[in-house]
Amino acid sequence: MTKFTSYYRADKSVAWGRLDGETIYDATSVAPSLAEAIADGALDSLADYAENPVDLAAVALAPVIHNPGKIICIGVNYASHRDEIGKAAPQAPVIFARYADSQMGHGEDALKPSISPQFDYEGEVAVIISKPTHKVAKADAYDHVAGYAVYNDFSVRDWQRKASQWLPGKTWPGTGGFGPYMVTADEVGDVTKLEVTTRVNGEVRQQGSVADLINDIPAIIEYVSTFTPLAPGDVIVSGTPGGVGLFMEPQGFIVDGDVVEVEVTGLGTLRNVVREVD
Amino acid sequence: MTKFTSYYRADKSVAWGRLDGETIYDATSVAPSLAEAIADGALDSLADYAENPVDLAAVALAPVIHNPGKIICIGVNYASHRDEIGKAAPQAPVIFARYADSQMGHGEDALKPSISPQFDYEGEVAVIISKPTHKVAKADAYDHVAGYAVYNDFSVRDWQRKASQWLPGKTWPGTGGFGPYMVTADEVGDVTKLEVTTRVNGEVRQQGSVADLINDIPAIIEYVSTFTPLAPGDVIVSGTPGGVGLFMEPQGFIVDGDVVEVEVTGLGTLRNVVREVD
Repeated sequence: MTKFTSYYRADKSVAWGRLDGETIYDATSVAPSLAEAIADGALDSLADYAENPVDLAAVALAPVIHNPGKIICIGVNYASHRDEIGKAAPQAPVIFARYADSQMGHGEDALKPSISPQFDYEGEVAVIISKPTHKVAKADAYDHVAGYAVYNDFSVRDWQRKASQWLPGKTWPGTGGFGPYMVTADEVGDVTKLEVTTRVNGEVRQQGSVADLINDIPAIIEYVSTFTPLAPGDVIVSGTPGGVGLFMEPQGFIVDGDVVEVEVTGLGTLRNVVREVD
Repeated sequence: MTKFTSYYRADKSVAWGRLDGETIYDATSVAPSLAEAIADGALDSLADYAENPVDLAAVALAPVIHNPGKIICIGVNYASHRDEIGKAAPQAPVIFARYADSQMGHGEDALKPSISPQFDYEGEVAVIISKPTHKVAKADAYDHVAGYAVYNDFSVRDWQRKASQWLPGKTWPGTGGFGPYMVTADEVGDVTKLEVTTRVNGEVRQQGSVADLINDIPAIIEYVSTFTPLAPGDVIVSGTPGGVGLFMEPQGFIVDGDVVEVEVTGLGTLRNVVREVD
């Protein structure tokens, strides 16, 4: 299993490396960031890389890719979530943006804005792009995937729904949980076998399988790359299953101190504790 | 009138400088880009800068800011446009993203995708941010504006409207016209006095005044900076008046060869010719 991740150095700069058990082998000398290493096609040669060991327990993890140029989020992409919203199937993928400065790593706090009583989770599988991707057909789409990681598209529901476009609820600082690491596509194998589970304080809230995506990953890559070019290290967040707090009865929003975990088969568990901030 | 703009060197790299009449005084030695010069607070000291002259006629202009980290677009922000859409006034600003790689400068082609019969224009005033802007109140908002420029938020209407979120129609390459130059805020003075006029092949299609914005520029800055931090060189595109091709009867979409001009009082005229591309 080849895993890569990013972490913070003592000076708060972001470094990255290969993760093996409880050790990160720092590869910042190979490329300045994981995104640039992907762009350089350097990951294959790092499968057994074992220099510059750093104790995982001694550092804080950063978002897997801390500086993606584009984070493309897919909405309403599981039937179980579409049904709870009560909408008909959309004719085409629902697509919106998140900015890189909204992200945090595994173990960092999820920041609930104090002005909103509607902070929510969305467990998802993130797809990390491997090479320039523009007008790529479905049949070739998997050739453009570097790997996969767990994502939590934390959402500020009242701000998301104040008007028709969702950006104001989808890119607050400390709301894009991304980690703990990426697993390379060759190691993941058949991505449709992955299962997503979201837990709040240990209670299972969401469960879904990538096999159940309304628009599957190749279809998304074809659609998105039709209208915008993707670059190595760009991220597609593929959608969330039913079970978000917004549509629970009674509603199950998350508050200061709640522990939110998203686990995906083979990709590990992303854990963030909610902290309310002004 | 202090104007700054960006342009392409022969090697296609982007340079920038102070524009005075038919001359650009290249200031790339002061800062690598206009956005970085703004971040450095360097524009004030360049009001009379007159080194490294380049003949304007000899170069192609680039987007005024070619590499903004964020381009925040405001929808349905003129009553005249809201009325033609037939919607009630939104409770809050409608906000969506455009990516920097979708932009082009004054004089560059607007690229109509051949797969869409619904290519449209949206003449707007762009606001260029001067300094870090996070949770800034209306009363302080104008202190965060470096200047203004003309923008054309060219839209691929069928892709914009395939699903609820507009990003797929709003960020195709060659659709974010931005130019010909920015005028510094102190020179613009009262921005609410600016008038926007859009012409297609000389025919006036849109007319509006910044005074008529539903959410004015300080309100937009306050709202946006509540949920996402803005940086120097970031761009807010403030909304378009009524008269877009989508809502004309019959519809007035633009096609290969059409000349689209957006003129704003004091900010010059942005001109792009439509070219159909696969």
